[in-house]
Amino acid sequence: MAASAPQPELTLLCGRDRAALEKNAGQLGFAEWSDDWHAVIARPDIDLVDICTPGAMHAEVAIAALDAGKHVLCEKPLANTMEEARELTAAAERARVDGHFAMVGFNYRRAPALALARSLISGGRLGAVRHVRATYLQDWLVDASFPLTWRLDSSQAGSGALGDLGAHIVDLTHFLTGDSIVEVASILGTFVKKRPLAESAIGLDASADQDGQVGAVDVDDACVTVARLGGGGLASFEATRMAPGRKNALTIEVNGARGSLRFELERLNELQLYEIGMPTEGFQTLLVTNPADPYVGQWWPPGHILGWEHTFVHQCQDLLKALTDGRQPEPSFTDGLRVQAVLDAIARSAAGHRWISVDAITG
Amino acid sequence: MAASAPQPELTLLCGRDRAALEKNAGQLGFAEWSDDWHAVIARPDIDLVDICTPGAMHAEVAIAALDAGKHVLCEKPLANTMEEARELTAAAERARVDGHFAMVGFNYRRAPALALARSLISGGRLGAVRHVRATYLQDWLVDASFPLTWRLDSSQAGSGALGDLGAHIVDLTHFLTGDSIVEVASILGTFVKKRPLAESAIGLDASADQDGQVGAVDVDDACVTVARLGGGGLASFEATRMAPGRKNALTIEVNGARGSLRFELERLNELQLYEIGMPTEGFQTLLVTNPADPYVGQWWPPGHILGWEHTFVHQCQDLLKALTDGRQPEPSFTDGLRVQAVLDAIARSAAGHRWISVDAITG
Amino acid sequence: MAASAPQPELTLLCGRDRAALEKNAGQLGFAEWSDDWHAVIARPDIDLVDICTPGAMHAEVAIAALDAGKHVLCEKPLANTMEEARELTAAAERARVDGHFAMVGFNYRRAPALALARSLISGGRLGAVRHVRATYLQDWLVDASFPLTWRLDSSQAGSGALGDLGAHIVDLTHFLTGDSIVEVASILGTFVKKRPLAESAIGLDASADQDGQVGAVDVDDACVTVARLGGGGLASFEATRMAPGRKNALTIEVNGARGSLRFELERLNELQLYEIGMPTEGFQTLLVTNPADPYVGQWWPPGHILGWEHTFVHQCQDLLKALTDGRQPEPSFTDGLRVQAVLDAIARSAAGHRWISVDAITG
Amino acid sequence: MAASAPQPELTLLCGRDRAALEKNAGQLGFAEWSDDWHAVIARPDIDLVDICTPGAMHAEVAIAALDAGKHVLCEKPLANTMEEARELTAAAERARVDGHFAMVGFNYRRAPALALARSLISGGRLGAVRHVRATYLQDWLVDASFPLTWRLDSSQAGSGALGDLGAHIVDLTHFLTGDSIVEVASILGTFVKKRPLAESAIGLDASADQDGQVGAVDVDDACVTVARLGGGGLASFEATRMAPGRKNALTIEVNGARGSLRFELERLNELQLYEIGMPTEGFQTLLVTNPADPYVGQWWPPGHILGWEHTFVHQCQDLLKALTDGRQPEPSFTDGLRVQAVLDAIARSAAGHRWISVDAITG
Repeated sequence: MAASAPQPELTLLCGRDRAALEKNAGQLGFAEWSDDWHAVIARPDIDLVDICTPGAMHAEVAIAALDAGKHVLCEKPLANTMEEARELTAAAERARVDGHFAMVGFNYRRAPALALARSLISGGRLGAVRHVRATYLQDWLVDASFPLTWRLDSSQAGSGALGDLGAHIVDLTHFLTGDSIVEVASILGTFVKKRPLAESAIGLDASADQDGQVGAVDVDDACVTVARLGGGGLASFEATRMAPGRKNALTIEVNGARGSLRFELERLNELQLYEIGMPTEGFQTLLVTNPADPYVGQWWPPGHILGWEHTFVHQCQDLLKALTDGRQPEPSFTDGLRVQAVLDAIARSAAGHRWISVDAITG
Repeated sequence: MAASAPQPELTLLCGRDRAALEKNAGQLGFAEWSDDWHAVIARPDIDLVDICTPGAMHAEVAIAALDAGKHVLCEKPLANTMEEARELTAAAERARVDGHFAMVGFNYRRAPALALARSLISGGRLGAVRHVRATYLQDWLVDASFPLTWRLDSSQAGSGALGDLGAHIVDLTHFLTGDSIVEVASILGTFVKKRPLAESAIGLDASADQDGQVGAVDVDDACVTVARLGGGGLASFEATRMAPGRKNALTIEVNGARGSLRFELERLNELQLYEIGMPTEGFQTLLVTNPADPYVGQWWPPGHILGWEHTFVHQCQDLLKALTDGRQPEPSFTDGLRVQAVLDAIARSAAGHRWISVDAITG
Repeated sequence: MAASAPQPELTLLCGRDRAALEKNAGQLGFAEWSDDWHAVIARPDIDLVDICTPGAMHAEVAIAALDAGKHVLCEKPLANTMEEARELTAAAERARVDGHFAMVGFNYRRAPALALARSLISGGRLGAVRHVRATYLQDWLVDASFPLTWRLDSSQAGSGALGDLGAHIVDLTHFLTGDSIVEVASILGTFVKKRPLAESAIGLDASADQDGQVGAVDVDDACVTVARLGGGGLASFEATRMAPGRKNALTIEVNGARGSLRFELERLNELQLYEIGMPTEGFQTLLVTNPADPYVGQWWPPGHILGWEHTFVHQCQDLLKALTDGRQPEPSFTDGLRVQAVLDAIARSAAGHRWISVDAITG
Repeated sequence: MAASAPQPELTLLCGRDRAALEKNAGQLGFAEWSDDWHAVIARPDIDLVDICTPGAMHAEVAIAALDAGKHVLCEKPLANTMEEARELTAAAERARVDGHFAMVGFNYRRAPALALARSLISGGRLGAVRHVRATYLQDWLVDASFPLTWRLDSSQAGSGALGDLGAHIVDLTHFLTGDSIVEVASILGTFVKKRPLAESAIGLDASADQDGQVGAVDVDDACVTVARLGGGGLASFEATRMAPGRKNALTIEVNGARGSLRFELERLNELQLYEIGMPTEGFQTLLVTNPADPYVGQWWPPGHILGWEHTFVHQCQDLLKALTDGRQPEPSFTDGLRVQAVLDAIARSAAGHRWISVDAITG
């Protein structure tokens, strides 16, 4: 890693399960652990709080941390509701005045290939953007016996595939194009409507309750959307946890007046690029592992690929660098609010069977 | 080609340009040519009429031919309007009583990989269909100086990318899933609104008028749609002629409760298949060139690929076989009407900014 | 097909099996058939003879045909032995004086992507050639119960994978680089040494004799070779019929001082190209279906792929055009002899466990 | 990372450049640094020495460390000469008696996809191995102005592409097949024979001396080899630093009597697998990121890919686990010696223009 990158001190790991905290804190390199987040936020030796809770707790914790003078990195999506997202954004604005900053954890912005894609587009290499088509397909809910974890509970997760997966591709659309989604029409679906209650859940793994009790899934398994961008482009989005064989299939293609590019997360070191007027015609596969590529210079020689975790390492580097420089890190809570408005518009469109203007929500 | 396949006699090539007819008839193997289609239809030695005109003429010619006791193969989409499509279907029904049959030329149903896909799905290998995502991307209109050919004129073509490209993926959705699209929400866009008038056009090639005159494009360059299937599946469709680098990029992926498959027309001999419960987990690339694969037994050894034109050869074989057997060939005009209703719903949805039920149109 | 292409008259189909001839002649469009090739060659109304027999008969038939004043197209490899190949070449030289020409059927030279590759290399786009690596992998002999057809009998086929598959990649190396293989070291292997006797064989299909008799395979199942090119480049070749899952996997990659290209026959419309100094770095996938690409202008719009049989159609076009123009078609028997010398060197190298100079054979 | 994995203490970083040591030790997490390796080896608080020097120093340092009672991890290839490799192996044997172990750093054995490949093959899923074809292609020497670093100096590196790249694919062949290479024929080439002297070199980066002086390259740029395996299989190997566009293109395909597999390092999370007798026929792309896959359970959810550095992390885990358990880690110096013998045979074959038996070298 770059010698010049600021290094965080891992002061404290905070959670609810004392046994897990005790076990994990040391392994993850934290000096201490605690199950009392209010106490943590009160400590003067903590400058930065990284919030990885389910969405339902984002607002309470992040606002308290910001108001206590901490910098905050909050997992995506920013919140479960527009109201919370607005409060979070307001708190971030207040904190900013005092030189404390808030960032949302849309980590895929830090995949080198996507950072390169953004710079190609913002540099005009693709011309005006006419099409964005993005999918985020997974399959971990295809098994109908998979239990009802917090990710399937709207009171905790807000929504299903929409907020978990759709949020990423909505943010990437904003990030890559520099444009905004202004209008949507969407359909949401839930294919497995009842599932066993969950006994435990870590990551995407979970085990079912032994009693055979079931509960209702009240979030979406899948979501399909068409949208219009402010600059006139057309977009389509699909997020699902019900696509057998698709493990982490985030794909995004952008077509402009002068060229196209395409990215697939399962081959995250690669970027497909097409430009009109090349000596020969065809999509070029860029293996984004050259020293001049974004984030890459600090790592290995060309062709030695990076893994998924690097998106978080780079995110952390960017955040610490911005804080060191006294700059607002990106994406800000305002960026997160903009994504939230699109998610909200999608949910309303699906519920109401009608077109929704995003401006009407944010306005 | 299979020795058992009925062979057509190429009696007569009919068109409007006498010079072109004279030049092409012999090369294409036709014994005669004519520029008077009414006279052609009146001839008793012609049994089958293949209609390849712009959509605006389909109804007049096909109905006349059917009423004159001919079998008819009509290019897709069936018509430019629902009214014409209904008249065509009625004519086909009348003719059928007398043992004359009408078929629509959705040639991609005859790609071996797609025929195999249908048989896998109808055999239950994928379980209940939950997702269809299909695109048909081309780029021949990206160049703003490309002239205003008949395909860009709604009075001749009916619509733009929607009818030309979208029709294929709508029909393939019906074909592969055995299900119907019942509801749509759609956005249409025209990115280049004025183009030079055309002097001539053959296939996708055209030359601009020398006078520098321009005309308005009154069809869509692109179309994005979300849809619901009768069986509860969600679908998304995109058709565009404005995706740089995408030459003939028809792709379709189907996710079911037990598996998935994916097809790309530019690699039309391949089919990606994923089934839950395989000994190892992953998409399998079927090179659909084995003797047991649909249509393949009559061709080359495994791995020796077929080209695009084979979709037409197989279509012709299937048609002639059905006629020889006195059976209705598929897809029928009724199938074409069903596609037409979806196209109509998409156009209305985009124009009216609202959800459209397909049943309300066909009903 | 191009209107300007000369059209052959299919006069007569010649073979040994009268029932098959009767059945196939009409279907293939031949006016007559015969089982007496001497008589055929004596006919004054036949100008061109296409020889598709096993290699053991090439010399006798082709030399007779050339000496009788016919043009000859002879399947590859040119012969089973160097002696025959030299006699064939001498006959071709004699015939040429009288304006009759001989050509070897290395059909893959006519794949548009490979014709484009040659033109890029001969135009200097890749710089000096440093590496050629080529494979031709099939799997139809993996099944040990596949019978002992003529292709497994050295008295008819000369060799196994070497002559059948290796000949193609040796010729393509000469064709693409314009250079010659000058030295080889090689290993041949036969993995299944006894097989059931064959009752019948058509193409790669065959059925075993019912008596359960077996015979010895006396040709190679597989062959691996390293080689040096006259210009200093290094090459490696592998031909096998024993690679499970590889149906028709001819691949060839060329690396030069300034760029690289790669081709795969199972995706024969595509060419991978890398050039040093492009604005962005990476292999570009050319979909060789544009009107300006070799052979393509007469066919479909961009992205509408061609199949394997087009390599034969283009070969026939080139041959007829050369004959019409009174020019020597390529590859000539001299080109075929050069390939034969490499095959001979490979076989000797493997048998003798030593390096073999190709010049020593041709000299 | 797995909580159960033994954690190393990073005691000391040792090298020659005091400024670099001072700068890097802290960043890499080492408590101390030293430029006196003899002193380091004498310290009683150091248990394990990881030797990353150029090959010329492996023997001296590793033997001293082993004789001083340290465990040793030595970078590949084991040595620059067979004599050194034998001495190293003898030292490892001596140390083993005392419970100290030596391991060679063939890190690619720890790519999950290759570990899975080995287990599939050793479990009989592919049947008897008939073919191995492996390449390791890079392009960092294509630029003729790239300076003469230690990797191009035989006195330090022993050989060029052969030892640096070829060693990996030779070891992987042994690892995957469980078989040994017994005989080789090979050609080595050096395309750029003089280069500027180097001022500095880190990793694959280097800057040229300013005086414009040049020196002779005395190692191979590229190497092509055919080989026979003890079990009768045929193999081909190619290693080059002269393949434009190929950055880190290690590929290996194995064909057995019942199936095939293929791996590409630039997509190191994927494994292509073909097995005879599957319900449908084709290569399956395994995305080797499932919890049950080798090494993967401790990392991310399915589809979240690992990077190149994980091969080293896993190597370190396996080494520490073996040491903790008092077991010999793999690959041992004996395994490294076996690779060395193949490299030696290849070099002799190329130099002498003749077949070389590996047994004759090791015997």
